[in-house]
Amino acid sequence: MSDNTRTINAQRLLDDLATLAQIGATSDGGVHRPALSSADMAARDWFKQRITAAGFRPRQDGAGSISAVWPAADPDAPTLVLGSHLDTVPHGGRFDGALGTLAALEVLRTVKEAGIALPVDLEAINFTNEEGAHHHMLGSRAIAGQIAADEFEQPHNEPAEFQAGLERAALTRKSILSARRDPTSIAGYLELHIEQGPRLEQTNLDIGVVTAIVGIRSLWMTFSGEAAHAGTKAMTERRDALWGAADFIQQARAIVLADFSPGTMNCGIIQAEPGAFNIVPGRVRLALEFRHGSEDMLDQMEQRLLQQAHEVARRYNLELAIESPGNVIAAVMDERVIQAVEAAADTLKLRHTRLLSFAGHDAQTMSIVAPAGMIFVPSIAGISHNPQEDTRDQDVVNGANVLLHAALGLANNL
Amino acid sequence: MSDNTRTINAQRLLDDLATLAQIGATSDGGVHRPALSSADMAARDWFKQRITAAGFRPRQDGAGSISAVWPAADPDAPTLVLGSHLDTVPHGGRFDGALGTLAALEVLRTVKEAGIALPVDLEAINFTNEEGAHHHMLGSRAIAGQIAADEFEQPHNEPAEFQAGLERAALTRKSILSARRDPTSIAGYLELHIEQGPRLEQTNLDIGVVTAIVGIRSLWMTFSGEAAHAGTKAMTERRDALWGAADFIQQARAIVLADFSPGTMNCGIIQAEPGAFNIVPGRVRLALEFRHGSEDMLDQMEQRLLQQAHEVARRYNLELAIESPGNVIAAVMDERVIQAVEAAADTLKLRHTRLLSFAGHDAQTMSIVAPAGMIFVPSIAGISHNPQEDTRDQDVVNGANVLLHAALGLANNL
Repeated sequence: MSDNTRTINAQRLLDDLATLAQIGATSDGGVHRPALSSADMAARDWFKQRITAAGFRPRQDGAGSISAVWPAADPDAPTLVLGSHLDTVPHGGRFDGALGTLAALEVLRTVKEAGIALPVDLEAINFTNEEGAHHHMLGSRAIAGQIAADEFEQPHNEPAEFQAGLERAALTRKSILSARRDPTSIAGYLELHIEQGPRLEQTNLDIGVVTAIVGIRSLWMTFSGEAAHAGTKAMTERRDALWGAADFIQQARAIVLADFSPGTMNCGIIQAEPGAFNIVPGRVRLALEFRHGSEDMLDQMEQRLLQQAHEVARRYNLELAIESPGNVIAAVMDERVIQAVEAAADTLKLRHTRLLSFAGHDAQTMSIVAPAGMIFVPSIAGISHNPQEDTRDQDVVNGANVLLHAALGLANNL
Repeated sequence: MSDNTRTINAQRLLDDLATLAQIGATSDGGVHRPALSSADMAARDWFKQRITAAGFRPRQDGAGSISAVWPAADPDAPTLVLGSHLDTVPHGGRFDGALGTLAALEVLRTVKEAGIALPVDLEAINFTNEEGAHHHMLGSRAIAGQIAADEFEQPHNEPAEFQAGLERAALTRKSILSARRDPTSIAGYLELHIEQGPRLEQTNLDIGVVTAIVGIRSLWMTFSGEAAHAGTKAMTERRDALWGAADFIQQARAIVLADFSPGTMNCGIIQAEPGAFNIVPGRVRLALEFRHGSEDMLDQMEQRLLQQAHEVARRYNLELAIESPGNVIAAVMDERVIQAVEAAADTLKLRHTRLLSFAGHDAQTMSIVAPAGMIFVPSIAGISHNPQEDTRDQDVVNGANVLLHAALGLANNL
C-alpha cells in the first residue's frame, strides 16, 4: 500500500486551473477554446511555460500534443502516460479536459519534487483536439496509429479552417501521421476527468472508477404502412406507421431500463410522411441509438430491440427497414488499472464505485494500444459541455491524489 | 308505405353515368374535372342538355349551380332539393358527386313520367365547386348564405385562376352572393353519394343512412422537456419530449378505439427538436385531429384527450402547450329524413345501417338551413378520390331507387 501522506500540491493545482480558465474565458463563466483556435494556441503556450517552470523540457509530437516526461533510469523503459486535453467544445466549461491535463502535470511535479525513481517513464500529455473541432481525438488517435490516410479530406469543419489551425500550430497532415508510437513503448494510460453526469453526486461518492467507455450503435428504422384519409379510413383498417414507431419508442425505453441498465437508448430524430393533419402517416423514419460498455451486451441489446421492432411492425401491419450509419466500439478499461485506481482511493480513504463512461475520451483510443483506465470526480448537478460546468475544489484535489497514487502503484506493476 | 314496384330507369341512369365519365376522362379510368375547368364546363353544358332532353327547363343560380325543377301545384310551395356535384378532385373517380347529381335528375324524370303530383317543388341540383378547387362547397354555401364577403380574397388556388373560372361560367363575386335563398323556401335536402369507405362492403349491406357528417377538431400539442446528451444524461433523469409524445399517441389511439368509436383520431405530423441521434429530444410538436358526428361527443373526446396529454406530460416531467388551428362543426342529419331513407330501403327490401360520414359533403351546408339527409352506397374496397373509385351497377340502381322513394316519402311529410 502506498504512503497515504504523499499528496499533490492542492493550491498549485487549483491556481493552475483558475489561470487556465481565463484563457478563452466567456462572460458567463465558461470557456470557448476550440482546438487550434487562438485561445487554444495561448493555452498551449501557457502549458509549455508551466512545464518549463516545473523543470521539465516541453516536448511536442507531430500532431501537436504537448508533454512533460519524468524519465526512468533505463533509457529503454516504456512510458506510463497520464493526460487529457486543453481544447473545449464551443462555449464549454472550465474542467472538461483541463482537469486531467493539469492534474497529470501536477503529479509529475510532485514525483519530481519527491525524487521518486520509477521503472517507467512518467509522461503528462495534452492531446491535441479531443473535442472534434477538426477531427475528434486527433492527438491520441495519431499516437495510437488510428488515423486513416484519407480522413483529412473530411474534417468536421471547413477544410480551410482545418488548414488554418494546422498552420497556427506549425503542423502538417504528414507530421500528424508521424506522431504514431510503437505500442510496446506505452506501458499504460490513465486519465482523470470530471464525470459529466450526476451519479457520483447523487450517491455521495468521491471517485468513479471507469470500467468501460460505452460503445454506441446507431440505427435508422423505417416503418412503412399506407398513407390514408384520416376521416374515411376506419382506425381498425389503418396501417399507421406512426402508431408503430410510437409503440416501438415505448417498448425500447422499457426494455433498456428493465434489462440493460446502465446501458441507455435514445430516439433523437423522427420524421413522419406525408405529414398533414388529415392524412394517416404512411412512413416514419426513426433514429435509434443505444450505448453500453460491453460489446456483448450491445449485441444482446441490438437483438432484443430489433426483435421488438419486428414484432411492432407485425402488430401494426407495417414493413420495417433497418440501416446502420456506423458504430463506435466499446472500450474496456484494463482490470489492473481499475484495481490500481481502487487501491489508490482506498489508501486515501475515498468512497468509490465502478461505473461506465457514457461520453467519449482519449482513453478509449489509448485502450487500443495499452492498458488504460479513467478516474472520475463528481460534476456539480451533472452539468457539462456548458458554461455552468463545475466541480468542488475538494473533488479536484481528491482526483489528482488518486491519479498520483494510482500512477505510482501502476508504475511498478505494468 | 310506398309502392315498391315504382323504380327509376336503371339503364338510363347507368348510361348517363358512363357518358359523364368520358368528360375529363383520364387514361387510367379516372376523371379530372376540377370546378370551372374546361372539362367541368363541358359537363355542365351536357347536364343542361340532359335536363332539357327530359322536358325540364334548366335553371342556373348566381353561383352557377344548375337545376331542374318538378313544380308543385301551389306556386308558393317550398322545395325539396336533391343533388350533389359534377366537379371532381384532381385525378379523381367517376362516382364522387356524379352519382348523386345524375340520380337526382333520374328521380325527377321518373316522377315526371309517372305524373306524380307533389305538395313541394322537387329540384335536382348540381352544386358548383363542392371539392374546393377554388372555394369548397361554393354552390351550397351560396344558397345557404354561408359565404363571408371577404373570403373571395383567399381562394384555395391563385386569384387569377379563380377569376378565369368565374369568367368561363359567366359568374361574378356579386352574382355568387345573390344565390342565397330564403331558408323557409327549402323544405329539405337529400343527397345520394358513394360511401368512400369500406364499411358497407365489409358488412355486406346495401345502404348507409347517414346520421351525421363528422365535425373535425384539430390541435397542435407541444411537449417540452429538456434537450440533453444521450450518453451522459441517465435515462431516469431525462425529460424526453418524444417519450411523452409517443406515450400520448398510444393512449389517444386506445381511448378513441375503446370509448369513442366510430369517432376517429389521427396524429399526422410530428416534429422533434433539436433532432440528432445523440441528443435527447427537448421539444416535440404533434398534430392531433379527431372526428365525431356529435358535438357533444367531440367535447367529451377533447376533454379526455387533453386530460390524457396532461397526465402524460406530468409522468415525463414535461410542459404541454395546446393551440387550435380551427374546427369543423359536426352536421347532424334530420331524424325525419333519416327515417324516410330507412323506410325507403325497407320498402325496397335493402339491408341498411346508420353510419357517420367521415368526409365533407354539400349536405353539411344544407343541414344549416333545412332538414337534411344522405344515402350512402358501397364503394368497392372503400377506395375514393382515386381513379380506381368504383361502385357496382346494382348499388348505383339501389341508391337511386332509395333516393326516389325517400323523396316521395319526404315530400308529403316535411
